[in-house]
Amino acid sequence: MEGVLQRGGSRDMEHMIMAALFFEPSTRTRLSFETAMLRLGGQVISTESAREFSSAVKGETLEDTIRVVAGYVDLIVLRHHEIGAAARAASVSTVPVLSAGDGAGEHPTQALLDLYTIAREKGRLDDLTIALVGDLLYGRTVHSLVYLISQFPGIRLLCTAPASTPLPDDVRQFALAHGVSVELRASLQEVAAEADVIYQTRIQKERFASLVEYESVKGLYVIDEAIVHAMRKDAIIMHPLPRAGEIVPAVDRDPRAAYFRQSHYGVPVRMAIVQHCLEND
Amino acid sequence: MEGVLQRGGSRDMEHMIMAALFFEPSTRTRLSFETAMLRLGGQVISTESAREFSSAVKGETLEDTIRVVAGYVDLIVLRHHEIGAAARAASVSTVPVLSAGDGAGEHPTQALLDLYTIAREKGRLDDLTIALVGDLLYGRTVHSLVYLISQFPGIRLLCTAPASTPLPDDVRQFALAHGVSVELRASLQEVAAEADVIYQTRIQKERFASLVEYESVKGLYVIDEAIVHAMRKDAIIMHPLPRAGEIVPAVDRDPRAAYFRQSHYGVPVRMAIVQHCLEND
Amino acid sequence: MEGVLQRGGSRDMEHMIMAALFFEPSTRTRLSFETAMLRLGGQVISTESAREFSSAVKGETLEDTIRVVAGYVDLIVLRHHEIGAAARAASVSTVPVLSAGDGAGEHPTQALLDLYTIAREKGRLDDLTIALVGDLLYGRTVHSLVYLISQFPGIRLLCTAPASTPLPDDVRQFALAHGVSVELRASLQEVAAEADVIYQTRIQKERFASLVEYESVKGLYVIDEAIVHAMRKDAIIMHPLPRAGEIVPAVDRDPRAAYFRQSHYGVPVRMAIVQHCLEND
Repeated sequence: MEGVLQRGGSRDMEHMIMAALFFEPSTRTRLSFETAMLRLGGQVISTESAREFSSAVKGETLEDTIRVVAGYVDLIVLRHHEIGAAARAASVSTVPVLSAGDGAGEHPTQALLDLYTIAREKGRLDDLTIALVGDLLYGRTVHSLVYLISQFPGIRLLCTAPASTPLPDDVRQFALAHGVSVELRASLQEVAAEADVIYQTRIQKERFASLVEYESVKGLYVIDEAIVHAMRKDAIIMHPLPRAGEIVPAVDRDPRAAYFRQSHYGVPVRMAIVQHCLEND
Repeated sequence: MEGVLQRGGSRDMEHMIMAALFFEPSTRTRLSFETAMLRLGGQVISTESAREFSSAVKGETLEDTIRVVAGYVDLIVLRHHEIGAAARAASVSTVPVLSAGDGAGEHPTQALLDLYTIAREKGRLDDLTIALVGDLLYGRTVHSLVYLISQFPGIRLLCTAPASTPLPDDVRQFALAHGVSVELRASLQEVAAEADVIYQTRIQKERFASLVEYESVKGLYVIDEAIVHAMRKDAIIMHPLPRAGEIVPAVDRDPRAAYFRQSHYGVPVRMAIVQHCLEND
Repeated sequence: MEGVLQRGGSRDMEHMIMAALFFEPSTRTRLSFETAMLRLGGQVISTESAREFSSAVKGETLEDTIRVVAGYVDLIVLRHHEIGAAARAASVSTVPVLSAGDGAGEHPTQALLDLYTIAREKGRLDDLTIALVGDLLYGRTVHSLVYLISQFPGIRLLCTAPASTPLPDDVRQFALAHGVSVELRASLQEVAAEADVIYQTRIQKERFASLVEYESVKGLYVIDEAIVHAMRKDAIIMHPLPRAGEIVPAVDRDPRAAYFRQSHYGVPVRMAIVQHCLEND
């Protein structure tokens, strides 16, 4: 799909329409999916946010909404605030449903683009030392990445998180059961020289017991020029974005800063997913 | 237009742009119109809701907004909260204006798709016994259906509504003047075996004098499996949707449950309306 | 581009996608830009308003948002509430950024369509007497017009504004330094017979020290049939719209009322700007 993009897109999905049903706003994900469909020659209808979803306001179930919209279009992309919404939608839809995130649940296309980024930038998905940094408890992209990368051999995870937001035990057990080495580290400084990939996430103030606790640790998890200097030459820094201070802007210029490339890979990855769904439907 | 859809749409409206101006949200109607235009090869620009309509916020009249947008596009679809808005818009527009509903007024494309559903599912528009169920006072789709179906011979209407929300007298008189038989029924049970078409609508709690009154009658107007069992084999159940409990989900599996097919007919019906307007403009 | 529009648009921007990023709503400007791109055969992805811009809500900088979206599309149209936002966006973007207005700053495409309107309607951009009427202090379209028209010889500006909202001194000095004659007038009546162009703007109640002051002067700045009667036969009335009473509707029928034509010129002007940016990128 990167090749298709370089040739100016395709017309493979001509005559196809995708509905982007966003019951909660996620501008970046919506624009990425819409771009993917348009680059394939398809068309898009959208709803930006739940507040506008008038029939839901009138008490319509998600299932009924999906049944109606499935009669209009060829593919539904669903963002919803409830865990399991995508599965419920898929169970009644007559067209493919792609999850664009369901609440605290999964965000599978983000996970696939994260995996693609590692494969694309590092040239492999095995024998990798990956530092997971920041909020590992609530950061669902971290959980999805652990589930996917655990399928590959030779993975070492360096968990670098405040004590209040560790990797959840079920995610950790899943990794261990798949032969992944899971180790704890106290700060970014300790992982900088070791990691092939630093996967950085936002640390949210509201996750801490007190502002004092937050202020005392946040500095341990900020990527600045000193951290980058300590990194291996062929390592990369990833971040699901948006960021809010945990990577200083001066780092952007370093070629190891892969997070904007990562977000751009979302378009070819979603093109592949859309085309796969519509060709196999 | 159903044939055009099966062939993957047309390019007849290529180079044409439709503006979907929704001064109040109506997601289902907007997506249905947008799909119709895209399936004809046209393009769409949209505004989801009045709160976003910045010039209206600054005090611009509807007429001025229409004059401006008519200079951009080939067709305007207007949803507005004021009765008569569509007619006002049409009076100043240099391009066709389609009403997508104006407040408590008419919703003509919904009425046409309801009529199309009956013709498509029953094979005729005359000699029909139609049960109108639920809120017949405020349900504007019911009024529009009565006005249209009264044009055909041999129509019997079985009005099955709480005492607080009867068919308005002017609508009833219109039907009578056109030779329609209008009869009252106390419950769905009484009409189930007689009707060719059950046209179900939402009963809204807030229309009742008291919650006690609401609770005492609501059961009389819910379609469940027992009602369906009593229905004629070739009868159909229609509903303008969204529903909120007045048809139990178990009914959906019955082939007589026509309400999702009804909503899907909205696309070919609106394709026909759009093409008619643009070809004859 | 007016010729392209008459031929039904072009396919020159096929395979190109424009992102309309509106951090504050401006429906008219957004629809005008979207129409321009679609008429050139391109595609559009949009976000209607800041409240929906989920990553901004999470603390993302404008620069990061632009870096991400620039990786999706070929062109960004940005509306923002902060002065200088467009320049900041352009400084980090890998694709062209068009300003659709930044707060109290500039609104350059509006300025260009104003200039195009004068050229198109009057046949020239020099030797013109232009009456600027209404709120000359906060009306940014007036300032932009003065900057542009000052490049041409033989310009006379008749400033017709309440004492509380005069032309800002820096704008006035710019005009004077470019050889423009800047004169004050007390009312529309005094300029009607002299002006080649009357550029009318909204007078906003909230700009006045008191309601009494507002009521005492507002009548001096309303264009009604008497004013039009006093105007030269080949003069034109312009207004950036929306209007809110400062031009009475009866004036619309007069061929000198150019304000709706002015708004319609926005499409070909923006088509030219979009095509210029994408062909030269």
